[in-house]
Amino acid sequence: MTISSKSIDVGVLGATGTVGQQLIALLDGHPWFNLTWLAASHRSERRRYADATKWRLPTSRPEQVADMIVNACAPPGAPKLIFSGLDASVAGDVEATFAEAGHTIISNANNHRMEADVPLLVPEINRNHLELLTQQTTQRGWSGRIVTNPNCSTIILTMALAPLLSLGLRAVNVTTLQAISGAGYPGLASLDIVGNVIPFISGEEEKIESETKKVFGSLKDGSVEPHGVAISAHTARVPVINGHTMMISVGLNCPASIDDLLGNFREFSGPPKVTTLPTAPKNPVIYLDQPDRPQPRLDVDRDRGMTVTVGRLRPCPLLDFKFVALGHNTIRGAAGAAVLNAELMCADGLF
Amino acid sequence: MTISSKSIDVGVLGATGTVGQQLIALLDGHPWFNLTWLAASHRSERRRYADATKWRLPTSRPEQVADMIVNACAPPGAPKLIFSGLDASVAGDVEATFAEAGHTIISNANNHRMEADVPLLVPEINRNHLELLTQQTTQRGWSGRIVTNPNCSTIILTMALAPLLSLGLRAVNVTTLQAISGAGYPGLASLDIVGNVIPFISGEEEKIESETKKVFGSLKDGSVEPHGVAISAHTARVPVINGHTMMISVGLNCPASIDDLLGNFREFSGPPKVTTLPTAPKNPVIYLDQPDRPQPRLDVDRDRGMTVTVGRLRPCPLLDFKFVALGHNTIRGAAGAAVLNAELMCADGLF
Amino acid sequence: MTISSKSIDVGVLGATGTVGQQLIALLDGHPWFNLTWLAASHRSERRRYADATKWRLPTSRPEQVADMIVNACAPPGAPKLIFSGLDASVAGDVEATFAEAGHTIISNANNHRMEADVPLLVPEINRNHLELLTQQTTQRGWSGRIVTNPNCSTIILTMALAPLLSLGLRAVNVTTLQAISGAGYPGLASLDIVGNVIPFISGEEEKIESETKKVFGSLKDGSVEPHGVAISAHTARVPVINGHTMMISVGLNCPASIDDLLGNFREFSGPPKVTTLPTAPKNPVIYLDQPDRPQPRLDVDRDRGMTVTVGRLRPCPLLDFKFVALGHNTIRGAAGAAVLNAELMCADGLF
Amino acid sequence: MTISSKSIDVGVLGATGTVGQQLIALLDGHPWFNLTWLAASHRSERRRYADATKWRLPTSRPEQVADMIVNACAPPGAPKLIFSGLDASVAGDVEATFAEAGHTIISNANNHRMEADVPLLVPEINRNHLELLTQQTTQRGWSGRIVTNPNCSTIILTMALAPLLSLGLRAVNVTTLQAISGAGYPGLASLDIVGNVIPFISGEEEKIESETKKVFGSLKDGSVEPHGVAISAHTARVPVINGHTMMISVGLNCPASIDDLLGNFREFSGPPKVTTLPTAPKNPVIYLDQPDRPQPRLDVDRDRGMTVTVGRLRPCPLLDFKFVALGHNTIRGAAGAAVLNAELMCADGLF
Repeated sequence: MTISSKSIDVGVLGATGTVGQQLIALLDGHPWFNLTWLAASHRSERRRYADATKWRLPTSRPEQVADMIVNACAPPGAPKLIFSGLDASVAGDVEATFAEAGHTIISNANNHRMEADVPLLVPEINRNHLELLTQQTTQRGWSGRIVTNPNCSTIILTMALAPLLSLGLRAVNVTTLQAISGAGYPGLASLDIVGNVIPFISGEEEKIESETKKVFGSLKDGSVEPHGVAISAHTARVPVINGHTMMISVGLNCPASIDDLLGNFREFSGPPKVTTLPTAPKNPVIYLDQPDRPQPRLDVDRDRGMTVTVGRLRPCPLLDFKFVALGHNTIRGAAGAAVLNAELMCADGLF
Repeated sequence: MTISSKSIDVGVLGATGTVGQQLIALLDGHPWFNLTWLAASHRSERRRYADATKWRLPTSRPEQVADMIVNACAPPGAPKLIFSGLDASVAGDVEATFAEAGHTIISNANNHRMEADVPLLVPEINRNHLELLTQQTTQRGWSGRIVTNPNCSTIILTMALAPLLSLGLRAVNVTTLQAISGAGYPGLASLDIVGNVIPFISGEEEKIESETKKVFGSLKDGSVEPHGVAISAHTARVPVINGHTMMISVGLNCPASIDDLLGNFREFSGPPKVTTLPTAPKNPVIYLDQPDRPQPRLDVDRDRGMTVTVGRLRPCPLLDFKFVALGHNTIRGAAGAAVLNAELMCADGLF
Repeated sequence: MTISSKSIDVGVLGATGTVGQQLIALLDGHPWFNLTWLAASHRSERRRYADATKWRLPTSRPEQVADMIVNACAPPGAPKLIFSGLDASVAGDVEATFAEAGHTIISNANNHRMEADVPLLVPEINRNHLELLTQQTTQRGWSGRIVTNPNCSTIILTMALAPLLSLGLRAVNVTTLQAISGAGYPGLASLDIVGNVIPFISGEEEKIESETKKVFGSLKDGSVEPHGVAISAHTARVPVINGHTMMISVGLNCPASIDDLLGNFREFSGPPKVTTLPTAPKNPVIYLDQPDRPQPRLDVDRDRGMTVTVGRLRPCPLLDFKFVALGHNTIRGAAGAAVLNAELMCADGLF
Repeated sequence: MTISSKSIDVGVLGATGTVGQQLIALLDGHPWFNLTWLAASHRSERRRYADATKWRLPTSRPEQVADMIVNACAPPGAPKLIFSGLDASVAGDVEATFAEAGHTIISNANNHRMEADVPLLVPEINRNHLELLTQQTTQRGWSGRIVTNPNCSTIILTMALAPLLSLGLRAVNVTTLQAISGAGYPGLASLDIVGNVIPFISGEEEKIESETKKVFGSLKDGSVEPHGVAISAHTARVPVINGHTMMISVGLNCPASIDDLLGNFREFSGPPKVTTLPTAPKNPVIYLDQPDRPQPRLDVDRDRGMTVTVGRLRPCPLLDFKFVALGHNTIRGAAGAAVLNAELMCADGLF
């Protein structure tokens, strides 16, 4: 993996939106990637990025993008490696158009996630799913390809569960307490969430239930056989800016003790090729011993928002064990996940 | 039940605290009860109530209590019917002393809840548990007695589950998103909860798991045989003022459809003797059809905070069904529960 | 004032919006007014109110309106007395059309507020401004008329200042900490205001500065001569649901002591004809002695949200005195103000 | 200023508290200072720092302090340069004892701030006030000395006003919207501030009014002649974690235009010796052009929390101009201020 500094030109689709802004922030100063191209909807087209965008992150807008001109969401002139932070209402067709035109699309949108020949990639977990790209190329006749990351909740959940996979994951019940940044901008009306809880996020429970099985699935005959875990998700929105907190119960096929699980959490790591990627966290999962952790305010930014923290492991009277997990929904759960996916593809020589 | 107006003198133990203030607010204008006596810790003793107490409810402090003198927590001079909003650190002994001295204690504290001869009463659910008082009197040789209401989360949970009891409640997984008022005052530090979630409430999960089984238990040979339901609770604190929201999954022994459960929720009612009590809600459980309800901000005050609202009933991939419930933790879950318990005892001729 | 029960039919323009919903809630059970007609934008036209509206108030939607059909915003079929909760983007023309067609419009919109022949009415303060209606009728040739209430902040501010008018109000500096409900729905994005302060509300400072002078102005030759007070407003949005808090400094022309001002606050009342109106608060202004009051959570709902609370009166090193005021922005500051205006007109025989 | 790396040993008094933790976080990795000594109250004495302290910052507790043993608050064994994050209830005597024993105390407590021979230092503004130390040494006969930084609000306010000093600052009206972290831990009860505003902070207005005059004062005959500005402060607490927002009106002696003030804000800088200190922000004051800025969530962390941001400059109908300012209360307003003060003293050869 001797990728020379800033040697890979990249672009961002949906550059003015929430995920797009976070992508731009993460690509600023990236050792391999050189952001050269931005695109967004017609409203922003041909405008200076600084004029077209109300920057909403607490970190400053990178200097270099201020004067870049926002392009239309069309392939001509775009670099080969493209991050897509597009909204699902338009991502499906635009991403396919780019892939057909020879671009590698690293997408955060949900449109192509569950298609049989599209990797739903979490590098620490299912790096081998990139083999689906062979099918994708063959079947679609595209010169490019699409790789997706799961929904923010699914990424955080699968990272928290991955250390337990070897114990035979049989059943999962998860309740998510999700941050408002997950809804994009403007997202939720303040009157709906200040001092309140909304116990409903449209489509979220279904995504968690289906995507988790694909992420944990096995490659078989050129497609993914979903993992057999039974999974039920409850999702709620809470007045937190960043960080999805999850209350998780698990049933395991193998007999195991609290210490076994603690050991698994503490020893979990991705494959060496992943852990050395620029955006990879030193520890993808960290177990916290304090009885009241993890908490969004104190733990969400660990390792630049790329680490999933876990705590409160204890027996479950109904399944086998229960615990709490937390992850940064717009970094580990979205933009950071996409950047890590792109890094892995470059390191694997797939780009 | 021909109880004449304001004919029953009552007192409040722990009158300056959070539950005590809520009790005083609910007793103001009560048709049967006449608040004549207040008691609190040494710090407040012999002071005017208005001087001893920083009133923290949005409703005004009832005029009549301002000039009442706060008594010591000792029986002399106290009326026979006493509400206890004492903190668990002192409630155990004080309540026993009053009961021994001939007072009827309606307690919100957890000290005596799980004792074999003490009713853990939710009038709509287990009114017959009052029969334990016979045992209590015999065994303890007290001329008075103690009746308790469950923990706030348990009350709301059991109310939400009660309509499903007839379907054979086999398993329950519940995650609570609890309001900060449940922690009393000063309770949580603001730095800990503003824009945050704390996934831990000391002792709460154990209380929910054990108290629920007692509330739903059967009387047998003078004590309560706990209900056999397997129950697992996850508890979290969220930045909501009032209202515990619960994400609930249930497993049932009987085959049942969504429509069966909806019917049960809609038809649920307490026994007629309960539903006509002054503090009883018109409908103890209300099912809301909107997909994003119940929510604390919109639903917590229904029927003066005494109704538990339920919604989002849907199949559960792991157990059988899942849904959301909400109740007012300091009214239905504490002070209102105690007042309703007292009303039932009066109506039943037990006082 | 012998108005018989429910004898006056009224309608609501903008019935599906935030102010419209609050108007409907306040008109429910009103002793004089009988709500018979609702209108809203094209999107809602001809639909059942319950279908056209997502009810967003914590109090239940009044039963009677559920099945009412939403009309177009046009006069035919509308009752003579109309409340307008229309958005400023459309209120100007629609209200004029109704007034021309003979309707009395009680408007919360800002479009006509500063017109010379339109009363900007706060019944406790400038009841005599209703005399402008003579000019309005003459000049415009309308058979109906328009009466407006000030902006929410202006109403609360003028109520808090009214007791000091007799001391020669010379200068006012006010900083408002405004609740999010003042921005309507969806209003502010939650990401903008959760755990945050936004020190800008478009147009608000100008409205406060100009409207206050008109409210306090004197009738002269058929128009209002603005009050000469110098006034500077700073406005900020804070994450509070209901209740605008105001930090006010005043300069007075007359020598006065703290006790003089306290006396004025405590003795302030509207004219008897106003204080006996159904929606009038018992005390339009209440001074609270506690050092940390008023606060939105504890004081905003006093007297059904119609009372303005004041506290912390102390000397100002720059002007003469400073103090804090609070009022309910959607009740005293909007819907309740409109209802009170309508009541006054009926009592004054102007309708 | 050729101070060699980590060459100066420092200690922290009140190391377990809120300010102490922030001091430790800022000293971690400091180029000059080497943290070798921690002290706190009796409760923590002789315990490992990690055991004695519940770390409450979102950034991780520096590794190096975990095993340090917490000392008593007494001079023996302490390094010569000591930061004091002690609570005002104990800071007065403890700091004097250390100064008498030859230590240089950089204090954040308010006890000694207004004493005539104690510098109330803001390096960018009144670096020359360090000359008071000559008096202090002479008068007190101490071998050490005490230097203080102002109250958090005063620092932010004086930084925002400093660029206007040359225009003849005549009058200031300021309303602060203060973050909850300013109250320490546990500080405000969550029930008091979630969804609420508290328009009172004990002693805060007096501190702002008196300290500002001292910070801006002139040295004369060995003491500080207070600046003649007339200043009035209103203070409120809002549910924001970090960042005090201030709504400021100013009256100036010199005729000046908006452009003059904008120029002053944009060109403001501290003396070169200050701007090159390790903790000094690149720009101590930044003017933001967007109409709705600064805001805590977006701007509080600029330049590691050391920059004060200003915006919304506009004419004031009452005084001359009004604008908004924002600063990080626990960094620029407390721990960062103390570290900057210590750096200046080292650079000035005063330590």
